[in-house]
Amino acid sequence: MIGYGFMGATHSVGWRQAPRVFDLPESIEMTVVVGRNADAVAAAAEKWGWLESATDWRDVIGRDDIDIVDIVTPGDSHAEIAIAALQAGKHVLCEKPLANSVAEAEAMREAAARAAERGVRSLVGFTYRRVPAVTHMRDLIAQGVIGRVQQVRAAYRQDWLVDPDVPLAWRLQKEHAGSGALGDIGAHIIDMTQFVTGQDVTAVSGTIETIVSERPLLGSGSGLSGTAAEGTGRVTVDDVAIFAGRLAGGALVSFEATRFATGRKNALTIEVSGDKGALAFDLEDLNSLQFYDRTAPEDRQGFAKILVTEPVHPYVAAWWPAGHMLGYEHGFTHQVVDFVTAIADGTEPHPSFAEGLSVQRVLDAVERSSDHDSAWVRVAADAPASI
Amino acid sequence: MIGYGFMGATHSVGWRQAPRVFDLPESIEMTVVVGRNADAVAAAAEKWGWLESATDWRDVIGRDDIDIVDIVTPGDSHAEIAIAALQAGKHVLCEKPLANSVAEAEAMREAAARAAERGVRSLVGFTYRRVPAVTHMRDLIAQGVIGRVQQVRAAYRQDWLVDPDVPLAWRLQKEHAGSGALGDIGAHIIDMTQFVTGQDVTAVSGTIETIVSERPLLGSGSGLSGTAAEGTGRVTVDDVAIFAGRLAGGALVSFEATRFATGRKNALTIEVSGDKGALAFDLEDLNSLQFYDRTAPEDRQGFAKILVTEPVHPYVAAWWPAGHMLGYEHGFTHQVVDFVTAIADGTEPHPSFAEGLSVQRVLDAVERSSDHDSAWVRVAADAPASI
Amino acid sequence: MIGYGFMGATHSVGWRQAPRVFDLPESIEMTVVVGRNADAVAAAAEKWGWLESATDWRDVIGRDDIDIVDIVTPGDSHAEIAIAALQAGKHVLCEKPLANSVAEAEAMREAAARAAERGVRSLVGFTYRRVPAVTHMRDLIAQGVIGRVQQVRAAYRQDWLVDPDVPLAWRLQKEHAGSGALGDIGAHIIDMTQFVTGQDVTAVSGTIETIVSERPLLGSGSGLSGTAAEGTGRVTVDDVAIFAGRLAGGALVSFEATRFATGRKNALTIEVSGDKGALAFDLEDLNSLQFYDRTAPEDRQGFAKILVTEPVHPYVAAWWPAGHMLGYEHGFTHQVVDFVTAIADGTEPHPSFAEGLSVQRVLDAVERSSDHDSAWVRVAADAPASI
Amino acid sequence: MIGYGFMGATHSVGWRQAPRVFDLPESIEMTVVVGRNADAVAAAAEKWGWLESATDWRDVIGRDDIDIVDIVTPGDSHAEIAIAALQAGKHVLCEKPLANSVAEAEAMREAAARAAERGVRSLVGFTYRRVPAVTHMRDLIAQGVIGRVQQVRAAYRQDWLVDPDVPLAWRLQKEHAGSGALGDIGAHIIDMTQFVTGQDVTAVSGTIETIVSERPLLGSGSGLSGTAAEGTGRVTVDDVAIFAGRLAGGALVSFEATRFATGRKNALTIEVSGDKGALAFDLEDLNSLQFYDRTAPEDRQGFAKILVTEPVHPYVAAWWPAGHMLGYEHGFTHQVVDFVTAIADGTEPHPSFAEGLSVQRVLDAVERSSDHDSAWVRVAADAPASI
Repeated sequence: MIGYGFMGATHSVGWRQAPRVFDLPESIEMTVVVGRNADAVAAAAEKWGWLESATDWRDVIGRDDIDIVDIVTPGDSHAEIAIAALQAGKHVLCEKPLANSVAEAEAMREAAARAAERGVRSLVGFTYRRVPAVTHMRDLIAQGVIGRVQQVRAAYRQDWLVDPDVPLAWRLQKEHAGSGALGDIGAHIIDMTQFVTGQDVTAVSGTIETIVSERPLLGSGSGLSGTAAEGTGRVTVDDVAIFAGRLAGGALVSFEATRFATGRKNALTIEVSGDKGALAFDLEDLNSLQFYDRTAPEDRQGFAKILVTEPVHPYVAAWWPAGHMLGYEHGFTHQVVDFVTAIADGTEPHPSFAEGLSVQRVLDAVERSSDHDSAWVRVAADAPASI
Repeated sequence: MIGYGFMGATHSVGWRQAPRVFDLPESIEMTVVVGRNADAVAAAAEKWGWLESATDWRDVIGRDDIDIVDIVTPGDSHAEIAIAALQAGKHVLCEKPLANSVAEAEAMREAAARAAERGVRSLVGFTYRRVPAVTHMRDLIAQGVIGRVQQVRAAYRQDWLVDPDVPLAWRLQKEHAGSGALGDIGAHIIDMTQFVTGQDVTAVSGTIETIVSERPLLGSGSGLSGTAAEGTGRVTVDDVAIFAGRLAGGALVSFEATRFATGRKNALTIEVSGDKGALAFDLEDLNSLQFYDRTAPEDRQGFAKILVTEPVHPYVAAWWPAGHMLGYEHGFTHQVVDFVTAIADGTEPHPSFAEGLSVQRVLDAVERSSDHDSAWVRVAADAPASI
Repeated sequence: MIGYGFMGATHSVGWRQAPRVFDLPESIEMTVVVGRNADAVAAAAEKWGWLESATDWRDVIGRDDIDIVDIVTPGDSHAEIAIAALQAGKHVLCEKPLANSVAEAEAMREAAARAAERGVRSLVGFTYRRVPAVTHMRDLIAQGVIGRVQQVRAAYRQDWLVDPDVPLAWRLQKEHAGSGALGDIGAHIIDMTQFVTGQDVTAVSGTIETIVSERPLLGSGSGLSGTAAEGTGRVTVDDVAIFAGRLAGGALVSFEATRFATGRKNALTIEVSGDKGALAFDLEDLNSLQFYDRTAPEDRQGFAKILVTEPVHPYVAAWWPAGHMLGYEHGFTHQVVDFVTAIADGTEPHPSFAEGLSVQRVLDAVERSSDHDSAWVRVAADAPASI
Repeated sequence: MIGYGFMGATHSVGWRQAPRVFDLPESIEMTVVVGRNADAVAAAAEKWGWLESATDWRDVIGRDDIDIVDIVTPGDSHAEIAIAALQAGKHVLCEKPLANSVAEAEAMREAAARAAERGVRSLVGFTYRRVPAVTHMRDLIAQGVIGRVQQVRAAYRQDWLVDPDVPLAWRLQKEHAGSGALGDIGAHIIDMTQFVTGQDVTAVSGTIETIVSERPLLGSGSGLSGTAAEGTGRVTVDDVAIFAGRLAGGALVSFEATRFATGRKNALTIEVSGDKGALAFDLEDLNSLQFYDRTAPEDRQGFAKILVTEPVHPYVAAWWPAGHMLGYEHGFTHQVVDFVTAIADGTEPHPSFAEGLSVQRVLDAVERSSDHDSAWVRVAADAPASI
């Protein structure tokens, strides 16, 4: 595993739990975690149960006893590490976003395609796909349960920036983070929309903007070298993104990603409306799926709150009896299960780097639209800026 | 209409709205409202749109131009007025509870039975039956949609007595009110349970008690003669009643009526569990009905929130288009519609005085059980105290 | 009252109930209802309790015994009737939308302004403002309870067009209805946003479109002359409108109005996020208001579901005791109360025709934006098309 | 760890995760798991990550390299194992219920008390106490946030027995399971009530009964020796328990435990009503806590849905950032954290065996009450049967 931040913790849970809860086709050894700070990464390895730590990822991806490389570093290093690892013949799990730019993501997609020809697998970590309720939503739509998709409403709302005293951390600086709410949480609702509907977003029209544009500087210990703890600095990423999208099948989607929705902590919500029914999900109530069935007797129609905690539901049978809730990090365990199974079976795991690239292109298109007075913009790389 | 308190207002809405919203078989004239205080009752008549006011109900029930007598006085006068009106050949609508004692209720049931032989109709005002969602719940159970009833959970929870400074009003004195939470709101959940399941409560085991037993006295103007505005007095009715009941079909029911459920304003909730499904209702969300269908595909089962605001639902077609909410007092309009229709059709309206008596007997049995260490007691009049 | 469709019924409830529930400064006489079909309007008058009916609105607005003219006709006749009535010195209540075009609305605003100088009052019927929870939301924001408004999310979602067999009624033809989801229900969320925040929408960027563009023709009896009951015709109004708006204070708003949100019957939802808290409302749960208080102790913050049914809440004290639900049509009663009170007091009632015009201008701007590839458009009449 | 059923899996998660997520004062080695079937227990050890397996628990508790014994066997063996382990100087974590009888539980309490004098710790596994929302509920009540407790409403409702074809498993036979819904899930709501209020249940009045009394027999492989796979057998434990309880402080509690609440999968709900506020919890929504504050401004009171996923909330800081949901098994991790910390600190962990005994006594009192026509019964061992 390359990297040891917050995502290092969650990925470690996934690697640790997967073989203890599911029956995997291969055994897993948590070999080595890599980071630049030798002491810190050694502590992380000890804490999370990795056998070794190391400081040079190039050494590690060259080791023969390593089969899988899991990348949880910031987005700007994803491309270099992933491409090198794939070339070294290692299966690669790369945390989202795939990269900080479309160009990098395209290079990664190419590397993954070439590696796949040699049986080397790659996966990008949109783990919310593996919340059982979300997987079940996708399955029901694919089965035609809600009919033709006519409209989608997706939002990811948080509120951690409402406080104007939140300091100017690296996530609020474009040169470090690449993007703000759009790239961080907007990416999730784009991927989830494409995943559950099975359709690409082909065009977008939207606006991104910064609500609080000056914030207190962090002190010099914060990692933002050259800044003192006094005064304020400019926020250079977006706080909110509101955009419309067009699906390949023609349906309109309303998207909203914001860090200013006071009181909403992690409210990823998506509702898909079809001509036979509708499905709705809310990450703050992640064990439930709302289902409206237009084919039910007319006097009994209503949104049913399905507790997606039954053995018939995706992933659930391996966990606890019916009615026992799962949490956020279970998706990371499911990700490991699916990835290891695909490697063993020789099949292509999803979301592939090509799917990660497709999200990246939508993000890029939203930025282009916002730069052009919010006019509609095609997502496809070779399309003109305005349609 | 005899009486002009809070229930006078709601009944007046019913008489006023019914012919303006529904197509009634007979026209309605709001003739006279009766009360002891001539000025106050005249003001009420003016305010609510009655043509006249009067102070002697005996005169009124003798008038030839009166067909229907609507009794909204306190419970201790129901029997006398209702029996006299029925004997005078007037159709009688009597607000719940039917009476303050089983003996009175029995006399009323007898009077109603004899009157019915002459085509004179009577009805007791459990208007919550006529909330569309409740009527629909009854219909679905009668159609077998949830199968055999195996368990019921019913509660009516309010919180207006949590404040210890609420004064010692007449409703908290047994000699005036007859009963506390049990008779006032417990009566509703007993009637609703019997109504939606179509089964009588045959036995009970329960406890009633007073949580705040001393309260500030009201001043002399309050109607409690002989007391001054200083000092405290003893609360002589129950604040809370918790009891189990047995339905004729064998199912157990848990009942709770309380005025001490902090934060619950008018939370009449009932859930009926059958072997094919379940139905649940909450008066604080009165346009909805929750329905669980065990016969649905296993991966899609969940409580569906049916908005009971569609034209296919009971009473709704006469009101607004789909999705427009109804409120508390609409039940009073429906009550007038059903009563006038039954009179015109020559059929027996429900709930009859016999049904009102049956509620009274259950209330009485709960008090007897509470007096006997909460041991089970049969409801039937001729059953032994303990079973 | 001019007109006698669905809105005729709801306005009649308002006129009938207001003096019976509230203490009004003036008495109300429901004099005459006007419509083109003499028999039908006579039946409506009889049914709803108006003393007379008539077929020529010009005669009626000339009568000396008429003080108030209530216009509930389709939007294309509002301007002519309202302006004539105002000129005749009658107070005018005009159902929303104020008019079918900005030009007509401007003329009405002018007429209203001139009439106001003579003490003649006018009001446009956005009754949702008078749902107690909505009024309370406005009050709390005005008191500063949620601080500075930083973001708004408003939607009005219905599903009555999901069925492709819904025929091509007049509401789906631009020449009759003027607009589709945007003008019909989008107007409500624009007005409500401006009302609760106290800020105008100054610019918009959006997309409107038709999801099902061909529908079965209605038969010749339907009022669409020249069409037979066979074949299909073209839907010429929008089914869905998705747009972003900018408030005068700078905050972004996401708007969505749709008739294709499967399972959503009347889901007008609005959430206002401030730097001290947030407030959210849902018309399908119209007695509740959700309130998040960022100033509460950190471990106890959460969205509180306020039941807006207490005597301290707007309008409620005149109705029932705490915890008793109100319904859709209560807003029409409150509208009458406020209008009659303003007339008696000689104050300006709200929403004024100027406020109705402002909604009209936003609707117009959304259509202009949609016609210009969804680029941002200023709302103000004299602003350039693109900003 | 002695035993390797469902609870073996959850306890293994706890031992495995605790040191990887929290900073523990001692390191943990998952040494040996014990079961009668050598192959099966070896497979469980391998699967869950225990170093060894064994078949004789007596050998294991004698080993010097074992400090803690975790008992997850069926209830009838708890007393023997726990007492032996405590006498051997091992700290003991015993899954709930503490025992199948009051007598056994008393012996265990005695053994635990004697062991504590020697610094040997014991804990009974009511892990729901360690759901962050439940711990927070207890903390808020202890801080006086809802004032004096005046009423409690607790229920645990499941529906897995609604299907009459569910076979006659050992859990439905009194000789194996000891008790039905009462002992299995009723125990949880008794413990949780005592935990969050800080008060003992001192008396009860209740009814337990079996709704479906005949079920299909399991085949001979089921562990019910002597029965064939044909025919039906008698259910000898209760399906439902409805009872009232009295807290030491005087408040009444309504309890309900049932396996027949159609559609309710794991609905442990508890609501505590105080004179200053109320708190409510639902295990099917386990990251939330509902809080009603009677001291808030009157126009803003309502049940607030607190997402108990902030760093300020119990246990949460060690997990994920704000707004990320936890699941069922996290309580088992917290249990290990608290137990190991108490052992290291030399303090008494909770719930102690004495607390487990107190639950056992309440269960016993409910059975005695049910046997005596549901009359009130004192819980205390030396109290007369009826009070």
